[in-house]
Amino acid sequence: MTRVLIAGIDGYLGWPLAQHLMAHGHEVSGIDAGFRRRWVAEMESHSALPIASLEERMAALADYHGRAPRIEIGDLTDAAFVRQVLDEIRPQAIVHLGECPSAPYSMIDVAHATWVQQNNIVGTLNVLHAMHELVPHAHLVKLGTMGEYGTPNLDIPEGFFEVEYRGRRDRLPFPRQAGSWYHWSKVHDSNNVMFACRIWGLRSTDVMQGVVYGTRIDEMGDDPRLATRLDFDQAFGTAINRFCCQAVIGEPLTLFGRGTQRRGFLPLRDSMQCLTLAIENPPAPGEYRVFNQFEECYSVAELADRVVAVAGELGVAAEVQQLENPRHEAEVHYYRPDRDRLPALGYEPTRDMAGELRQMLEDLLACRSRIEEKRDVLLPDIHWDGSRRPPRFLDSLVAADSG
Amino acid sequence: MTRVLIAGIDGYLGWPLAQHLMAHGHEVSGIDAGFRRRWVAEMESHSALPIASLEERMAALADYHGRAPRIEIGDLTDAAFVRQVLDEIRPQAIVHLGECPSAPYSMIDVAHATWVQQNNIVGTLNVLHAMHELVPHAHLVKLGTMGEYGTPNLDIPEGFFEVEYRGRRDRLPFPRQAGSWYHWSKVHDSNNVMFACRIWGLRSTDVMQGVVYGTRIDEMGDDPRLATRLDFDQAFGTAINRFCCQAVIGEPLTLFGRGTQRRGFLPLRDSMQCLTLAIENPPAPGEYRVFNQFEECYSVAELADRVVAVAGELGVAAEVQQLENPRHEAEVHYYRPDRDRLPALGYEPTRDMAGELRQMLEDLLACRSRIEEKRDVLLPDIHWDGSRRPPRFLDSLVAADSG
Repeated sequence: MTRVLIAGIDGYLGWPLAQHLMAHGHEVSGIDAGFRRRWVAEMESHSALPIASLEERMAALADYHGRAPRIEIGDLTDAAFVRQVLDEIRPQAIVHLGECPSAPYSMIDVAHATWVQQNNIVGTLNVLHAMHELVPHAHLVKLGTMGEYGTPNLDIPEGFFEVEYRGRRDRLPFPRQAGSWYHWSKVHDSNNVMFACRIWGLRSTDVMQGVVYGTRIDEMGDDPRLATRLDFDQAFGTAINRFCCQAVIGEPLTLFGRGTQRRGFLPLRDSMQCLTLAIENPPAPGEYRVFNQFEECYSVAELADRVVAVAGELGVAAEVQQLENPRHEAEVHYYRPDRDRLPALGYEPTRDMAGELRQMLEDLLACRSRIEEKRDVLLPDIHWDGSRRPPRFLDSLVAADSG
Repeated sequence: MTRVLIAGIDGYLGWPLAQHLMAHGHEVSGIDAGFRRRWVAEMESHSALPIASLEERMAALADYHGRAPRIEIGDLTDAAFVRQVLDEIRPQAIVHLGECPSAPYSMIDVAHATWVQQNNIVGTLNVLHAMHELVPHAHLVKLGTMGEYGTPNLDIPEGFFEVEYRGRRDRLPFPRQAGSWYHWSKVHDSNNVMFACRIWGLRSTDVMQGVVYGTRIDEMGDDPRLATRLDFDQAFGTAINRFCCQAVIGEPLTLFGRGTQRRGFLPLRDSMQCLTLAIENPPAPGEYRVFNQFEECYSVAELADRVVAVAGELGVAAEVQQLENPRHEAEVHYYRPDRDRLPALGYEPTRDMAGELRQMLEDLLACRSRIEEKRDVLLPDIHWDGSRRPPRFLDSLVAADSG
């Protein structure tokens, strides 16, 4: 049993993680400031699945697990708040999900870019300082992203690599080449966490997570109060989740460009499994370790095709279209990240992607009207060049070019 | 003639740079928020050399150069202020010296760590966004630090290196391993600036500067209103400057540990020369280039010995003592950074370190009472372990060990 504090317990990952950890016998407490609900409202959207209030969620946990987690409402950028919570709870592990996770949100304008970076960096610095002062032996499980690495023309190791240069050798942090102000905030965090481990002997697992999809974990059951959120707006909806929402309302699944970008993906239940493995197998004091966390790498177009196929089995006709890419990213690139450390701890990937997609599509079909109500939020109008304009379909671009 | 905006024009580098650029025919304007004067007051110190107010400084520039630079008083973390200044001045080059430059200051406590990182990061993000919107062809000369690299067991290239890994090759950012929250803020900045050049086609020179020392540049003359500041407190005084101040008041020159740390150093006049070369030779649009900027690498102990020797020629008896190292750093390490790009542009290092030290010691001897008045600020009591306590001399540590 580990005493785990989840920062961001009300979010897409935090909420199922609380259920998963309690079902596995851990003692859970949480922090949340309600940011995720507000950000999605700012994007003029809502969760595709209806979600309960934080109070109702806690009551449901009490019903199913015998007790409700202790919840502290507050902001990680408030150092005194963070210090007070760590002092009272004295966690053995802190799972830090309490950051703004959206690349497009960070690219809206200067106000959003600076807000995302300062929010994420200052929150993490506050956690590190409070750990150093109060719980120096606790284990920080920090959520990073595979997006920190970008797409180098090399294999991507787990955080560090042995490099030879001009005849000398050293083990160095693998260079990061992130693709948005948000992704860079995660790189800045990783560097800060690595430094805290070096100078203060803290221990941390920095999880370079792939793109998560799905609506379910085993522990969730059918009580609607236990359901997790599922976002589909351009800023907080991730690729597969957005594709499924597009399919159920009869919109085309939209690729950014040709959709040949390759990324690592994993279902929600695997994300829970991996985070729990990290918690249950802490690193040594002073150790800063990096896990690459994904089930498999796919091209985005390949995933869209899989969604179309599963939707077809459910009687939902779906098609794929290509959009002008709002991002500044390589669409054709080498991509082979390592993924050895979590399997070595016992990670068993869920290989049944079709089953995951079927469950998600069924859940979303039941909420079709909620998605239809907000269908305008699906298409990306936040462009990496700083403009805000409706995206163009590539077919029409081609037609315009030749016309 | 280049229209240059200096952010941080009232600082140790900004003020002589304004004089140097005006003497070389450039059109100078400036931004300052007065932070440096406040930080040094917070450290309960003052500049060893008396300095004029910003208003007096501008009047002096008008006397010597026919006109005073336009000065905007404000904070780079205020996006609207930055935008307004760039809109009105439309600079062709922006020299960004407007950051908190102190490692010890950033290590005082969580409030200082977060303040330094958010101040430096948000200020730079605001400058990048305003450039993108208003002056996308301007050249950002960003002050970084050689401290971004740390002390890897490899040669240190200028920003990027060709690396082979598992049989594949790529040109990647050289991994950074900074040694304080401040130094990491500069790494975070470098990453943000690199990204802005990539997505927006901005052009930037990121200057990895060594430790600067000295009181003079040729253009300064003897008008006391033109003098630059010279700090000697533990947070804002750099190694050689602090050694010279210790020498003139009869205090031992204090090394951190054995003083075998090797670093790149350069005199103030060379820093001005290099920044001017960067301004006069801008990179191509979209290019993010990194210059390593120093005259030569020395061990800190070697530099202390040089100060002792020159002080002796001036009749000042000085000695060197070793302090318990308040920092977390390697004291014995490989260190060979490249320094090719500035010499290729015409940089001619000042080779007469003894002459520089003599000038500085003479200037400081004339201000001896100002240093004596604040002698307590010279010794480092900010430790990287988070404590604040008087440092111990290593000799007495050895004596205690054997006693």
